[in-house]
Amino acid sequence: MQPRDLSAHTPYEAGRGIEETARELGVDPEDLVKLSSNENAWGPSPKAVVAIREAAAAVHAYPKASHADLQAALADRFDVADGQVWLANGGDGALDYLARALLAPGDEVLVPEPGFAYYAMSARFHHGRVNEYPLRKAEDFEQTAEGVLDAYDGERVVYVTSPHNPAGTEMPPDEVRALADRTNDDTLVVVDEAYGEFSETPSAVSLLGERDDVAVLRTFSKAYGLAGCRLGYAVVPDDWADAYARVNTPFAASEIACRAGLAALEDDDHVERTVEGARESREYMYEHLDCPTWESGGNFVLAEVGDGTRVFEAAKREGVIVRDTTSFGLPECVRITCGTPEMTERAVGTVNDLL
Amino acid sequence: MQPRDLSAHTPYEAGRGIEETARELGVDPEDLVKLSSNENAWGPSPKAVVAIREAAAAVHAYPKASHADLQAALADRFDVADGQVWLANGGDGALDYLARALLAPGDEVLVPEPGFAYYAMSARFHHGRVNEYPLRKAEDFEQTAEGVLDAYDGERVVYVTSPHNPAGTEMPPDEVRALADRTNDDTLVVVDEAYGEFSETPSAVSLLGERDDVAVLRTFSKAYGLAGCRLGYAVVPDDWADAYARVNTPFAASEIACRAGLAALEDDDHVERTVEGARESREYMYEHLDCPTWESGGNFVLAEVGDGTRVFEAAKREGVIVRDTTSFGLPECVRITCGTPEMTERAVGTVNDLL
Repeated sequence: MQPRDLSAHTPYEAGRGIEETARELGVDPEDLVKLSSNENAWGPSPKAVVAIREAAAAVHAYPKASHADLQAALADRFDVADGQVWLANGGDGALDYLARALLAPGDEVLVPEPGFAYYAMSARFHHGRVNEYPLRKAEDFEQTAEGVLDAYDGERVVYVTSPHNPAGTEMPPDEVRALADRTNDDTLVVVDEAYGEFSETPSAVSLLGERDDVAVLRTFSKAYGLAGCRLGYAVVPDDWADAYARVNTPFAASEIACRAGLAALEDDDHVERTVEGARESREYMYEHLDCPTWESGGNFVLAEVGDGTRVFEAAKREGVIVRDTTSFGLPECVRITCGTPEMTERAVGTVNDLL
Repeated sequence: MQPRDLSAHTPYEAGRGIEETARELGVDPEDLVKLSSNENAWGPSPKAVVAIREAAAAVHAYPKASHADLQAALADRFDVADGQVWLANGGDGALDYLARALLAPGDEVLVPEPGFAYYAMSARFHHGRVNEYPLRKAEDFEQTAEGVLDAYDGERVVYVTSPHNPAGTEMPPDEVRALADRTNDDTLVVVDEAYGEFSETPSAVSLLGERDDVAVLRTFSKAYGLAGCRLGYAVVPDDWADAYARVNTPFAASEIACRAGLAALEDDDHVERTVEGARESREYMYEHLDCPTWESGGNFVLAEVGDGTRVFEAAKREGVIVRDTTSFGLPECVRITCGTPEMTERAVGTVNDLL
């Protein structure tokens, strides 16, 4: 027998890891600068590393049924009720929970193009249909309520990415409010703030006190440096706690991840160092890259290099790994993650030499 | 706005963790014996603990796009192609991947009753429908092809749990073959061997060389002692590698989990100690529990104590946590996980005193 027809399900194109790339090039991973996956160049929260090492000895036990302490800490930070925090196995897992909670077969979602591939993947896994709204390079990828509404046709879920990956543009809460005001009563606007900590724009969570049609996605993968243990969450409207119990995969967020997350959340020094470093790296790239860039709210900068694949391949041979954005529909660009001054200078120098 | 009608989605009833129970009872967790979640009483693989501690420092990096080394090690062990091993975030994650690959809306699955709740949950999350086949206490929960076929009505997926949780009974490969021979060409028989390492019955993976309508589920949560970092996998028919790329959530299996899994897989001493200890514990329970029990292929024994909830509550007050099987539809039983000799003797003594 065979699986059903999966031709509508496009495989995710992940960036290769530093070890795999080092093996391909026959070099030491230490000699590579990897700025392709928007990982935290300052490493994980040291407090989280300690928490992981301490938790390792008891890893034979299942994760707690309820990570009440981590839920409470996040709820406190965002001034919402504990039950509004839906912990999940990475931001991807939170997207699946929202799809389970919202989508009947055939329901439609509206996603940005270019944008994060998993919005569409998750919707299709749950038999939803996918429509796109454009972010246009000619308009500097500007994100406005009007721009989304031009494409909106009553979809059940509208995804906004702010800061946007890979463009870096943002949609501030006032604009999210304007968008949610003009969508249907049964449409949820989901604002993915995976890069929110790097931005100076306030979180759309501020809208949840006044309305029930906005949710926010966040992750520990970026500013907290925990991509390798998978922890993300959605902040949902006020009275959805019962729905979480019904769509939650038991134990999906691992004990290791939740302990690490709780420690990282209290590690203000690490987040400050990371955010400050990322902002300096962005400024350096705006100033020194000899090609067009866009202002970014995230820990990365999109750069128009002409032929993204050529620059990606040639930079890799020089030991600098950036992200070819061809799979985002931007073959003329690369995306460069913010790094330490040394990493950033080397990446900028290498890319400039290739222009 | 509100989520869709989720009333058909029953929340999972997880056993409470040892810390939560200790807090409730006002005692030290060290004074409790927790034999309620079929966790590994001998702890995690020590080699895996080392691997987790080593991996912690690089947890800011995303998991490798392909855990080729772990896939290859598992494929080698089961004598299948690497692409037949679908790694996932726990066995639950593997169930979701199978549902994505197989179920169109309205497709039906057939699950054992009593049985593991997530078969049905995962199917419903993907808009499948759920039918049940009975395992009858009056027949000592015997698992036969005939018994499943009596209820079979052309479902797309048939789930078999061998060893069965909570009954402990098994369906050997010959019987799985007899079942698959008589189901439709487009039905997949999934044999969940989460407890397979504790059994002397050969794995149903042996059937995958001869047919394309059987898959096997396995987990690192039990014999390897890695429940807290979430790692499971499906072994699927030969030519399904492309489907994995299409249904896989990128990075769902964490880097921490995959490193730990690879180390645990090579830790034969730990698995032998665990399996030997579990068998001794089973034998002790058969012999010394003053109530009916069933022979078990897993690391647990089902015991008919009369009023499972009463015995669960009273044993808990004595510091012994067993599993009340009321949520499995067996209110007259408790399930007791295998433990060290000290743990087992204390649990058996406590339960006997309550009969």
